[in-house]
Amino acid sequence: MAKSPYSEINLKHVRLTGGFWAEYQNTMLERGIRHQWKALSDKIPGAPKSHAVENLKIAAGKSSGKFEGRVFQDSDLGKWIEAAAYLITVFGDPELESTVDDLASMMEEAQGEDGYLNTHFQIAEPEKRWSNLRDLHELYCAGHLIEAAVAYYHATGKKALLDVMERFADYIVSLYGPEDGKARGYPGHEEIELALVKLWKTTGRQRYLDLARFFIKERGKEPSFFIQEAIARNEEGLPAHASRGLAYFQAHAQVEDQHEAVGHSVRAMYLYSGMADVARESGDQGLVEACKVLWQSAVDRRMYVTGGVGSQSHGESFTFDHDLPNDRAYTETCAAIGLVFFAHRMLLLERDSRYSDAMERALYNGILSGMAVDGEKYLYVNPLEVRPQACEQRDDLKHVKYERQPWYPCACCPPNLARLIASLGVYLYTTADSEIAVHLYASSTTSIMINDHEVCLNQETNYPWDGLVKIHVGTSESVTFLLALRIPSWCDTWSITVDGTPADEIPVSDGYALLERQWNGAETVELKLSMPVTRIKGTSANPYAAGRCAIQRGPLVYCIEESDNGDLLHEIILPPDSTLETAPWKELHESFLALHGKGIRCRVIPPDGYPFSVTEIKKTDEKVVAIPYFAWANRSPGEMIVWIREA
Amino acid sequence: MAKSPYSEINLKHVRLTGGFWAEYQNTMLERGIRHQWKALSDKIPGAPKSHAVENLKIAAGKSSGKFEGRVFQDSDLGKWIEAAAYLITVFGDPELESTVDDLASMMEEAQGEDGYLNTHFQIAEPEKRWSNLRDLHELYCAGHLIEAAVAYYHATGKKALLDVMERFADYIVSLYGPEDGKARGYPGHEEIELALVKLWKTTGRQRYLDLARFFIKERGKEPSFFIQEAIARNEEGLPAHASRGLAYFQAHAQVEDQHEAVGHSVRAMYLYSGMADVARESGDQGLVEACKVLWQSAVDRRMYVTGGVGSQSHGESFTFDHDLPNDRAYTETCAAIGLVFFAHRMLLLERDSRYSDAMERALYNGILSGMAVDGEKYLYVNPLEVRPQACEQRDDLKHVKYERQPWYPCACCPPNLARLIASLGVYLYTTADSEIAVHLYASSTTSIMINDHEVCLNQETNYPWDGLVKIHVGTSESVTFLLALRIPSWCDTWSITVDGTPADEIPVSDGYALLERQWNGAETVELKLSMPVTRIKGTSANPYAAGRCAIQRGPLVYCIEESDNGDLLHEIILPPDSTLETAPWKELHESFLALHGKGIRCRVIPPDGYPFSVTEIKKTDEKVVAIPYFAWANRSPGEMIVWIREA
Repeated sequence: MAKSPYSEINLKHVRLTGGFWAEYQNTMLERGIRHQWKALSDKIPGAPKSHAVENLKIAAGKSSGKFEGRVFQDSDLGKWIEAAAYLITVFGDPELESTVDDLASMMEEAQGEDGYLNTHFQIAEPEKRWSNLRDLHELYCAGHLIEAAVAYYHATGKKALLDVMERFADYIVSLYGPEDGKARGYPGHEEIELALVKLWKTTGRQRYLDLARFFIKERGKEPSFFIQEAIARNEEGLPAHASRGLAYFQAHAQVEDQHEAVGHSVRAMYLYSGMADVARESGDQGLVEACKVLWQSAVDRRMYVTGGVGSQSHGESFTFDHDLPNDRAYTETCAAIGLVFFAHRMLLLERDSRYSDAMERALYNGILSGMAVDGEKYLYVNPLEVRPQACEQRDDLKHVKYERQPWYPCACCPPNLARLIASLGVYLYTTADSEIAVHLYASSTTSIMINDHEVCLNQETNYPWDGLVKIHVGTSESVTFLLALRIPSWCDTWSITVDGTPADEIPVSDGYALLERQWNGAETVELKLSMPVTRIKGTSANPYAAGRCAIQRGPLVYCIEESDNGDLLHEIILPPDSTLETAPWKELHESFLALHGKGIRCRVIPPDGYPFSVTEIKKTDEKVVAIPYFAWANRSPGEMIVWIREA
Repeated sequence: MAKSPYSEINLKHVRLTGGFWAEYQNTMLERGIRHQWKALSDKIPGAPKSHAVENLKIAAGKSSGKFEGRVFQDSDLGKWIEAAAYLITVFGDPELESTVDDLASMMEEAQGEDGYLNTHFQIAEPEKRWSNLRDLHELYCAGHLIEAAVAYYHATGKKALLDVMERFADYIVSLYGPEDGKARGYPGHEEIELALVKLWKTTGRQRYLDLARFFIKERGKEPSFFIQEAIARNEEGLPAHASRGLAYFQAHAQVEDQHEAVGHSVRAMYLYSGMADVARESGDQGLVEACKVLWQSAVDRRMYVTGGVGSQSHGESFTFDHDLPNDRAYTETCAAIGLVFFAHRMLLLERDSRYSDAMERALYNGILSGMAVDGEKYLYVNPLEVRPQACEQRDDLKHVKYERQPWYPCACCPPNLARLIASLGVYLYTTADSEIAVHLYASSTTSIMINDHEVCLNQETNYPWDGLVKIHVGTSESVTFLLALRIPSWCDTWSITVDGTPADEIPVSDGYALLERQWNGAETVELKLSMPVTRIKGTSANPYAAGRCAIQRGPLVYCIEESDNGDLLHEIILPPDSTLETAPWKELHESFLALHGKGIRCRVIPPDGYPFSVTEIKKTDEKVVAIPYFAWANRSPGEMIVWIREA
């Protein structure tokens, strides 16, 4: 296969200038990243203790005490540094920079002679190093720290942290690979694959790409490395969360022979992202095909309407096609973020809106729902239906929190949100030699090189609240290139003008309107996407959507909450003739829009003592207020549902 | 309170003469009880090994080896003996009698000098006797063996087993009670309370009733016996299945202060049954009120339409009001059987059809579903909705079997079904000095003493398939008494004639038509209950019934199965105008009736690659075939649902 023509854009060259995402990015800069720093430094009263910073201090000899937290506690710090690096890239922030510099110095001090760096194993269990790649997350943590180092190097040009992580990566290269004397291992929790690709891109050192490819291609080979490793530890069987086998780790077959998205959903998404990276860089057609097959499984058949993935708590895992229960959904924030990583990499393989549509769906819904609008409280699990009493009393719902938490004992999601939101700019576009593809609409300015000409794109829009997007295309001289504008699959009616003139007969390919023309310095493209309120029907293979609809307007999925609609939300029916209209919803934010419409509350109360007797049904008209799903659980705790009865 | 005027009838005096229950009783005699004996004797290839008989042989010195099975394995044998005793009572059966005699001899040999009898503790852990009433089921097993002994004594007049169990009971009396020197303990799994009441009734020895009352009244007192006992064992906390506290054992409060049915549902039902027994015998008004309050909680608010109770697998337990998920239902067969025990005892306190209605609902639906029509395969959990793939792949459904099993590692349900079906006659009537109340309709002959006059009742009916019931009332001379005929709550239209003459102005009280008259030797009462197919609506406080209906005809709840209707059963809608008509369904039995009607299959298939795009809905008319719920899972494995979409 020819190498993909597409490239990602540089975060340095994108600036969100206002509106939805700019505000979220500001919230992350001003509140989120600082709140998270406090959490990592154990300075939030009442919140679960992280100990991540303290662990590093101990490992660096600057403090004493015991390691605390999960075996993968370092990864929280890695993701936080990466997020800080992106915010520094976008905004500059000497305070954050100084904090990261301090952390980098400590990592340098903590690092072993051999390059090893992992506070858990350095402080608590040095004898267990590399003894259990399957469960102990060493390569996972290394991956996150590599991503952090790469991001911080790009943000500041400072090499100290990058050097530390290169030393660590070189140590890992010396241990694992196809060569004699190296172990044929690979990580139980994928992540380092995509990190090594970043490290290769930044350093140019082929060995990192080679190791990433090795980890991916070695996975699932017989005899299983994980089984061999367990035998060496005198262990039998798999951990409880992997009770259904090596598929939990996506290690049940070689990746080209994997046809379904299975196992732990975050691991799956990170693996597939790494696969897409390696496929793109190596032109490995088998890997490209495997990515497409796994995309179809994960997204077409196993993704929630919110863009969340992971249908059960057990193993935080995928289950089977169209098994998408609303209340028991796992839909971890990190998994939806992983889906964005995967989608972005698929867009770097081919411009197809099936990827950008899902990316947008996850971003605006199942990811953003993971953070309160104040940036300081989070959800790990993002259910599509909540009854607080059920969460309290049912063991099969004990993973579902109906109130946002300031931190988690396993705090992977908050810094993952931080790094995604901080780097959001890069997801707006991909480019090729003579093409700019616009995947996301957001007010922003971006500079992109096209055939050695700088093209400035200035998007002005009130998206996602409004479907009008103005894109000012600025060039210093005439340039011919294709501007591909994504037409979202939720949009039936759209139009494009260039400098006010309707562009007629615009070809549409794979979900993109293709404006191929000579750009002469200062044109304005106006894209109008109609944004009617739409009722989404789930496939009838999903029993939990049967007889129900989800409400979507533009990219936003809506839900109904007890705060607006009272309790017993499943009594509420949206009759076929009920039209939902937008209405300002300023309770949380000046710009947010709610939807108002006519509903029917259908109450059935059997007579005392005879719970299943023939019963009168009392129907009353009731105003229904729907709010964007991402904004649920920002008020009093209560019920919430996404899939609303239609009859 | 005045002592209740009601008494139970003697199983010896009832004979099921044909039709539904007589056939089930015959199946139990000819196949079920023998199959179960094979299971208890480890003679069913491929079935989980019981070892119950072998354990007894070892304890009796007739075999050697280790104890195997659960700590409560003896209870399976207890229930089996009880069932055999009832079948001997009804049918006579020298082979069964000889088997029980052998078991009785072995129990006599196994019994300790002090009266102790429990093969687990005698063989495996003698040092742990009486060390943990909370978890180790000693009093539970004793209770089942006492019930067995009482039943076998009434069946045969043979006292050997009764003597064994009296010795054991006397030993227990010496250990527990309010007197100085005795421990103030009570069982973790209730059962012995109701057994001791039976033993008291049979022997006339007050100490057994006193101990039953003590166990009930002591329960939940502070400081908790269970906590004290755990401290003495140097243990902290509760077992995992009791993660939500002592409520799992109904030991969180004294019984009069318990207002909700909580915890392990079988334990709850057995406790409430014992409470009702003691309330009746002692006239303790506080206990009567507690029973009523707990009935309302269990039945009005926490019972499934099938009569099943227990809404979650965790702790096999109740959850909260109206939380009745269909797929995750636990609804253990034993719990529904316990509900019948409780209902029967409430009917001995007051003649109110809320008890008999629920009793009938459980019997014909959530209990009978626990056994294949051949009597040789069982269900422990009785779900109201099944997708085989979900049971295989979802951890929150791993308790749900969609194929009947010949035996279980924890085999409490099969012999419980056996003893209930074998003794079914006693549930038909209760009597008072001048009253016979008819609770269940089934072809049968019964002899009841009313004011020293023998009254013979001969029921002829094709119930539950038909609502016509003829009751021939035979007396040797004129007797005046009240014949109270239950008018089921599912029945809107009914009529009664006596010798062909319409009885006019029959008063109805608490769900019973009251025929108070002088009976002159040979009258025929004809009760006609209309049996239309009815759509049941669940309370709208139950989200899992929202927009759906359950189909009921007479006492039978229906379901739809994949065998008749194809898969994706949630695609099927029963439109409001669709009338279901009865049709013979001879696949399983000559007499069974299915229901046929018009349904609509509503298929939604989104376009490839865009799983939540606006989608066409394809509606096709389809014949719907519903079968009685009790008969599900007797054919090829597949989907099943009780609550069917209405739109």
